[in-house]
Amino acid sequence: MGAQPSRDGHTDDTDDTDDLWAVVPAGGAGTRLWPLSRAGSPKFLHDLTGSGRSLLQQTHDRLVPLVRDRVLVVTGAAHRDAVASQLDGLPDGAVLAEPSPRDSMAAIGLAAAVLERRDPSAVMGSFAADHVIADPEAFRRAVGTATAAARDGWLVTLGIEATHPATSFGYIHLGEGLPGHRGVHHVREFVEKPSAARARHYLATGDYRWNAGMFVVRPSVLLDLLAERDPAFASSLRDLADDPGRLGEVWDTLPRIALDHAVAEPAAAAGRVVCVPASLGWDDVGDFDSLADLLGRDPGDPDGPAAAGAGPLVLGETDLVRAIDTSGLVVPGSGRVVTVLGLDDVVVVDTPDALLVTTRARAQDVKALVADLNASGRPELT
Amino acid sequence: MGAQPSRDGHTDDTDDTDDLWAVVPAGGAGTRLWPLSRAGSPKFLHDLTGSGRSLLQQTHDRLVPLVRDRVLVVTGAAHRDAVASQLDGLPDGAVLAEPSPRDSMAAIGLAAAVLERRDPSAVMGSFAADHVIADPEAFRRAVGTATAAARDGWLVTLGIEATHPATSFGYIHLGEGLPGHRGVHHVREFVEKPSAARARHYLATGDYRWNAGMFVVRPSVLLDLLAERDPAFASSLRDLADDPGRLGEVWDTLPRIALDHAVAEPAAAAGRVVCVPASLGWDDVGDFDSLADLLGRDPGDPDGPAAAGAGPLVLGETDLVRAIDTSGLVVPGSGRVVTVLGLDDVVVVDTPDALLVTTRARAQDVKALVADLNASGRPELT
Repeated sequence: MGAQPSRDGHTDDTDDTDDLWAVVPAGGAGTRLWPLSRAGSPKFLHDLTGSGRSLLQQTHDRLVPLVRDRVLVVTGAAHRDAVASQLDGLPDGAVLAEPSPRDSMAAIGLAAAVLERRDPSAVMGSFAADHVIADPEAFRRAVGTATAAARDGWLVTLGIEATHPATSFGYIHLGEGLPGHRGVHHVREFVEKPSAARARHYLATGDYRWNAGMFVVRPSVLLDLLAERDPAFASSLRDLADDPGRLGEVWDTLPRIALDHAVAEPAAAAGRVVCVPASLGWDDVGDFDSLADLLGRDPGDPDGPAAAGAGPLVLGETDLVRAIDTSGLVVPGSGRVVTVLGLDDVVVVDTPDALLVTTRARAQDVKALVADLNASGRPELT
Repeated sequence: MGAQPSRDGHTDDTDDTDDLWAVVPAGGAGTRLWPLSRAGSPKFLHDLTGSGRSLLQQTHDRLVPLVRDRVLVVTGAAHRDAVASQLDGLPDGAVLAEPSPRDSMAAIGLAAAVLERRDPSAVMGSFAADHVIADPEAFRRAVGTATAAARDGWLVTLGIEATHPATSFGYIHLGEGLPGHRGVHHVREFVEKPSAARARHYLATGDYRWNAGMFVVRPSVLLDLLAERDPAFASSLRDLADDPGRLGEVWDTLPRIALDHAVAEPAAAAGRVVCVPASLGWDDVGDFDSLADLLGRDPGDPDGPAAAGAGPLVLGETDLVRAIDTSGLVVPGSGRVVTVLGLDDVVVVDTPDALLVTTRARAQDVKALVADLNASGRPELT
């Protein structure tokens, strides 16, 4: 297959993904990015980087060189049309609509069951629709490496180089290298979001990577791993792939559980998970603080710290923002002029029907405002 | 006239203002209150206290018990209709329109000349259209006392009790009591806006009052005082009162000078100015910091400090504001929901075409934002 060592020591498998399907779970409201992201128009449908492409479109753009049109997007029924419209040219059947949110095991498991029937020799890679990856070339190399390992029956996760002691991500504890697969390591365990002290320890050891929820696996391996823990769940998913007409009837009976808990963690404990460590310039754009980090990055050093700049970062029309003695992030999204005077690390998000003013330090708590609006009779704004 | 000592030792002259005319200069853009106040819709036309009445209307409401319909409003030609519309029922000729802004000596001097012709025995009191007075009864008592002294030929200024060492107002230095007029003092001098240290000294002596620009005087006394310094100016004003048709031709030739400089300061130096000290709950609502002070006041203690409250002060529909861990002032003026999270002493002013986010501490500097908008091609917003 012409595989050759790349500059970072991985086997270069990027030309060798002819059997790879991309599964793109497009869910989650992105509540901490309100009022940009709404339940009816979630984060993945938005251009959060000022690139002119939504996060979903950027995810698709990144995958096309690897999988061409072998793509399955799994999304809520309410977003099916918006997804199809943003990704025009997708083949029929490329969008699976969940009747209701049922957590990641059901969503990704359904895609796995559909693929298992459609292409029994396939490998699937699952990549969320609402993450940002600054280095698509590194991403393709890592997925190529992961695909080769997945072909051999492993559940392969991508492990993101931890550039700071984040407490908002889970971590992957790496073990020994996997013989026969350069750039692939055994996974000792997945660990939950750590304390700040523990996160610093993880970074110091060099043996931990961020778990971004990206993995590559044969669909049958994934479903068989699920069947070991919950045979009824796995067979329900396979039945649905046989008879999609029963989706409305069966879907709400499926367990609500994250794939990490249902499959990845027990499989790691059983020594059946491996990891491709990678430095991708990855970001989950979880809140306005991380969005500001992302927009402030030096393009030449995507994992580096935000560049110091004069004035706030602006997502949108810079002409609409007038700021004096201000830093932070301003999103002028209503066409109105936004003026800010004398506030550091402020976040101002202006939309036609709602305005948010907060600080980068409190960006995580935006969900409390959304909860307040829902509780106090303004759910139409969330 | 049944004058009797009031509780604060003034002669109670409130029933004795039958010869008093009110002159209301309605000018000034209120730039530091942008984007509420605009050049085309200045501060005095706005309800800044949530009372349902604009500052101009409140000024008029306060004067009616003293002067009935003996009112002259001096305003820019652009605002003549708005003034007439807010004060419906004003007699013909009650609004004098300045062809262009020409500072206070020209505006108030023109009103004095018109009154001198209309009612040679009149006394006039000049009261800005954009100040707030929390204790109208004390105001009426003070004006009554001032009117009696003005009848005797004095230029009488009201001296506002200084409740804190403000550096944004000029001060009046009181001298001895004026024989025959209880509650009236000679004025030693007017002093310009002081340093903070000097302002503290002024407060400590007890001999200084804030100069709010309110004064009572016979029109002929005012014009004669002006004539001593600038005879041509005084005679131009009297000529205009004789022949208002020449206003367009003469107005732009008049000196641009404040009445304080043209008349009050030299007259004080000559011992011809007296002062009625008064505690009125006065505020010039100069910026959003002072507006927040005003809105936060305990109504039972108008000169006291702002009440500590949960959440920000809101001017407008409180239902439109959702705030968590926030203090300061929010003005929801566009119908949109305004959410604020984790900011102390913040100022958020939302209008249909422009948004301001700043802090109470920087409220004075809002004029810099307005200057920036004017300089950068968005003067229509100011």
